[in-house]
Amino acid sequence: MIYPNEFQELMDGFKNLPGIGDKSAERYVYAIDSLDDEVVNKFSESLVEFKKKIRKCSVCGHLTNQEVCPICSSNNRDKSTICVVEDSKSVFMFEKTGKFNGIYHVLGGLISPIDEINPEDINISSLIKRIDDTVKEVIIALNPSVEGETTSLYIQKLLDKKDVKVSRLSYGLPVGGDIEYLDPLTIIRAIDDRKFLS
Amino acid sequence: MIYPNEFQELMDGFKNLPGIGDKSAERYVYAIDSLDDEVVNKFSESLVEFKKKIRKCSVCGHLTNQEVCPICSSNNRDKSTICVVEDSKSVFMFEKTGKFNGIYHVLGGLISPIDEINPEDINISSLIKRIDDTVKEVIIALNPSVEGETTSLYIQKLLDKKDVKVSRLSYGLPVGGDIEYLDPLTIIRAIDDRKFLS
Repeated sequence: MIYPNEFQELMDGFKNLPGIGDKSAERYVYAIDSLDDEVVNKFSESLVEFKKKIRKCSVCGHLTNQEVCPICSSNNRDKSTICVVEDSKSVFMFEKTGKFNGIYHVLGGLISPIDEINPEDINISSLIKRIDDTVKEVIIALNPSVEGETTSLYIQKLLDKKDVKVSRLSYGLPVGGDIEYLDPLTIIRAIDDRKFLS
Repeated sequence: MIYPNEFQELMDGFKNLPGIGDKSAERYVYAIDSLDDEVVNKFSESLVEFKKKIRKCSVCGHLTNQEVCPICSSNNRDKSTICVVEDSKSVFMFEKTGKFNGIYHVLGGLISPIDEINPEDINISSLIKRIDDTVKEVIIALNPSVEGETTSLYIQKLLDKKDVKVSRLSYGLPVGGDIEYLDPLTIIRAIDDRKFLS
């Protein structure tokens, strides 16, 4: 036992987090040691408060501290457009742009037979149930990965029966990126999704 | 306000730690979200417990959960050799080698006039007070930086008046390192500190 008990236990606490090993955990413990008691107490409380208060919106599945999230309960959002995303991370990303005024549906994962994640394991049926007359368009905003495209195709098929437009995010050149360094697949997608200017 | 309150506050908590910005903090919050309540509660408690229980050893200044640390209070340690280090981090590093059987003195910093850290701001006087007849050697184990060498020289001068041997760690090639990639200063030091084999 090189470290005092409380030191070791705090290190172990940090090591629950992704990418934090012995070295980083030790570094954070020293940082905690030099922080004011008040700051650390607040941090400690915020961990418990987060687990207590944060839950999934009963409508869209987004992380929120209310029964229904502020986006779903807002009167200023366009309820006719639902953007389907993998997780809350995506919702926050879209919200940061400040340009999307529709609402969301959080799947909470992607279909992945290899990882034994089937359509019934993610929030697809709740999406289908949400599609009523007010919904005009479903934008599928999933990662351009095998899992993302499988999930996208699956949803697309289910929505075929409904009177709703289905779209997906365009693939193409990332803004600020350099064509020289792009992978061939992205270039092919950028050609396929090309936008006619005249 | 893109994030729910409790989400933002937990992010802010993580951002108190060194090298953690918005991106990492957000990532850790998602990790907390997917951890079991029990694990997070324990982590939360360990933060408070650490601040409550961990203090500085009243003899050597090392982090401990007792009045006097286990190293200082052990009967199996050689009390005639004091190893002077900058911080507790160094003590743990030395203890991990399992090869040093003396005791330590933690300075809690290095003399650095630029940063307005003067000799009286670090635990030098308490070191001098510890030097009695039982102490035969003081090993100075500070970083080979300007601050480390300034502090080393300062301590050395004070100990000149005492009947005690003073040594410092040798400078030289790091084991497993490649001479090709060493800086010139280390090579000069490795020549200066060379060990005669015959």
